[in-house]
Amino acid sequence: MKNPALSALGRRTTEPPISWLMHAALSHPKLISLAAGFTDNASLPVAGVRAALNRVLRSPGTGRPALQYGITAGDSTLRKLTAEHLKNLDAQASPSTGIRGRGTRTSTRTIYQERLLITSGSQQLLYLTTEALCDEGDIVLVEDPTYFVFLGILQSRGLRARGVRLERDGLDLAHLEKVLTSLKRSGKLPRVKLLYLVSYFQNPTGVTTSFVKKVEALKLLKRFERAAGHPIYLLEDAAYRELCFQNENQTQSMVSTPSPRPSGERAGARGFKLENHWSPHPAPLLVWRGEGEVKSALAVPGAADRVIYAGTFTKPFATGVRVGYGILPQPLFAAVKHIKGNHDFGTSNLLQHLVARALASGIYGKHVAQLQRRYAHKARVMKLAIDKHFPPAVEWWEPEGGMYFWARLPHNIPTGMKSKVFSTALKNDVLYVPGELCYADDTARRKPNHEMRISFGNASETDICEGIRRLGRVLRKFL
Amino acid sequence: MKNPALSALGRRTTEPPISWLMHAALSHPKLISLAAGFTDNASLPVAGVRAALNRVLRSPGTGRPALQYGITAGDSTLRKLTAEHLKNLDAQASPSTGIRGRGTRTSTRTIYQERLLITSGSQQLLYLTTEALCDEGDIVLVEDPTYFVFLGILQSRGLRARGVRLERDGLDLAHLEKVLTSLKRSGKLPRVKLLYLVSYFQNPTGVTTSFVKKVEALKLLKRFERAAGHPIYLLEDAAYRELCFQNENQTQSMVSTPSPRPSGERAGARGFKLENHWSPHPAPLLVWRGEGEVKSALAVPGAADRVIYAGTFTKPFATGVRVGYGILPQPLFAAVKHIKGNHDFGTSNLLQHLVARALASGIYGKHVAQLQRRYAHKARVMKLAIDKHFPPAVEWWEPEGGMYFWARLPHNIPTGMKSKVFSTALKNDVLYVPGELCYADDTARRKPNHEMRISFGNASETDICEGIRRLGRVLRKFL
Repeated sequence: MKNPALSALGRRTTEPPISWLMHAALSHPKLISLAAGFTDNASLPVAGVRAALNRVLRSPGTGRPALQYGITAGDSTLRKLTAEHLKNLDAQASPSTGIRGRGTRTSTRTIYQERLLITSGSQQLLYLTTEALCDEGDIVLVEDPTYFVFLGILQSRGLRARGVRLERDGLDLAHLEKVLTSLKRSGKLPRVKLLYLVSYFQNPTGVTTSFVKKVEALKLLKRFERAAGHPIYLLEDAAYRELCFQNENQTQSMVSTPSPRPSGERAGARGFKLENHWSPHPAPLLVWRGEGEVKSALAVPGAADRVIYAGTFTKPFATGVRVGYGILPQPLFAAVKHIKGNHDFGTSNLLQHLVARALASGIYGKHVAQLQRRYAHKARVMKLAIDKHFPPAVEWWEPEGGMYFWARLPHNIPTGMKSKVFSTALKNDVLYVPGELCYADDTARRKPNHEMRISFGNASETDICEGIRRLGRVLRKFL
Repeated sequence: MKNPALSALGRRTTEPPISWLMHAALSHPKLISLAAGFTDNASLPVAGVRAALNRVLRSPGTGRPALQYGITAGDSTLRKLTAEHLKNLDAQASPSTGIRGRGTRTSTRTIYQERLLITSGSQQLLYLTTEALCDEGDIVLVEDPTYFVFLGILQSRGLRARGVRLERDGLDLAHLEKVLTSLKRSGKLPRVKLLYLVSYFQNPTGVTTSFVKKVEALKLLKRFERAAGHPIYLLEDAAYRELCFQNENQTQSMVSTPSPRPSGERAGARGFKLENHWSPHPAPLLVWRGEGEVKSALAVPGAADRVIYAGTFTKPFATGVRVGYGILPQPLFAAVKHIKGNHDFGTSNLLQHLVARALASGIYGKHVAQLQRRYAHKARVMKLAIDKHFPPAVEWWEPEGGMYFWARLPHNIPTGMKSKVFSTALKNDVLYVPGELCYADDTARRKPNHEMRISFGNASETDICEGIRRLGRVLRKFL
């Protein structure tokens, strides 16, 4: 009786490749991992969390409620604070990069009461949304490359992915149209429910999708809905949104109040490497040129019916505190909430109270501002090391937020887990994420296998320098 | 474009009936709810949790790790403590009620390293297990009646349920055999993957399944595996296991050390109402007669390959701290762990550190012992009130643990949400859970609709007395 009676889903769900990378790290004690997406360890807000928790548990109004069951949608105070927080983030975005449409103003009250759901990290929202929308065999449009754990969800649930090319300022709209047209022609459009977009400082490339592109992408999806026979949603994963870099010397500023952006000069110094336009159709750089932030897709006209927004307090605050949230169109919201009820009845009330307290007291905002400067510094350290140690044949993208650099070798030099570059790097005690893990199984194109994701999130400055030095030495052997 | 593009799962997942009950409670401000499964509010361990969290966050060894990502299976310290905790629970169970089989001793180390997974409450384990094992159309065997949220999972995932009758000491084995035989004859046995058993102080009936019955149930399942073509697992949901009643005057005792049981005399006073043998085949009462606890199915020979054990620290400690766990046979363990990785990467590290600290420091054990006495007291209050106010035609089961009484009216008096009894109760500001919600949609029998679950978990002593008085008055109108 060896057959373990697993379901089709159970059989499809395999060990994620990232586990293998973690095992590799464990078996090489001197290894410097530039692979992990862990948060900076040194700056974790231990004191702030302790203060917030003591406040929650000392107060008669919150002590017991924090230890009792809540409702599935989440604590109403936290939902309210979250809706206000999001409103502030979009308010910070400069009008010059956004579009102010009519009819887009949904009151904060309506959002938090009717469409906002607290989840166990934004990851859970990705899972729940996929459950609520997609049947086995359905097709999900993803960026090419994209967040590999989301690809794991698709694989596990028997869904197919179609990759949409990525430019320096986000989705390649011409390619999106081409993909949709091709799906329409082959009669597969009814299987398409969703375009998944990691819109800010994308994992793995660091790319931010401009607001203009969000508007245009939504228009495009809408145009194909008649042929699909149903709405095609935009799932905006904004996990890294708040991890935008701040000038290291800037005075501390709250996230919830508009903060001065770096001057144009400063932005130029940290700007994109303009020589690296990989896309055949270079697009104007609309993001992060010092003018302000990029509005979320929630600010696009008609978003209330088509945009699913996944946010998190985990990445920008403390990864051990797993609290994320989603804003969803009705009736998708209802379905996702009921499915979450079956998963777990609702996210831990204690964690929700902690985050609410951290938001309301300013602990959260202070920490995010600190983290923004810290990551800006670490990214700068990594950039200088890459400049120094990587051979010129390696192209790379410098991010303006998040925690990843994205590097590309010449096409004939693979970087995958079975490649010589990878095994040599491992022998030299340095680890990166092979780019091929971030590409969907899409028969419409050959899977690129000559890139790497390099993270500065968790490594110390010393390890960043030494890790990049080791990686540079490895790369020079092959170039 | 009204069609929201929901998946089949999304369409099947409807608002749980319990939500309706909660809405009813909100619209009747004077209502006394004997429906909620919430924990006793007054005794929530606010001070203990605060002490444990301060300890975790003050210590350099745990402060940062608690706020960082962990691994999907869970924190290794907590897994180790959980395995030891479980071992102690089974060690407490008296040999006279259990069976000491050979080859059943699996070392704690093997269990926590290879088969133990920390989850967001035991609810998440139920969901994950169902995902890993069951395809749409599969059949799950459940107790009749059973935990209604599990029925919600089955409904949502397109699974069918077959009810197995319940006797005063657990599953009706003769009926289980009959159901399996009938499924074999109709060729449906290959669709059966799972028998779901809420084995201790069951929700909703309060019934505990004797160890002998667990042994026999596993033997029966094994006998039908050849015809099924795969293993048939026993999913033991032990959520209420630690909420066994203690003598109110007993000195405080740790859960992890064997505690003296009430004397036979005392047990008799709190014993089952022996006149209420509803089953046509009265079985000897093997459970909880003062001799000791009942071993889990993990202690049955061969359990390592067939028993899935779902436990929780949520119910016996603090419901706002959502930490549960599962012990699963390999390779089911691997599948469930990978699926959990897709859900959320792992349960919040902060919550895991909190529970580990509470276990190691004795805070957990002290609280559980206190809660056992508290629930014993509240159950006693409810029993006396029922004795006084319910008409004699109402049969009811008194529990020896957990938080529910189960009452049965004559067959011709329905108690469902559309019944006169229910609406009259609501008019009189008292709420119960209609028994029909706890029965699967099983065409093999008419769904019983004349029972009620009455909870003393969250209500105060005053509310218990007044609530039962109101309910008694309502019942007398119909009897």
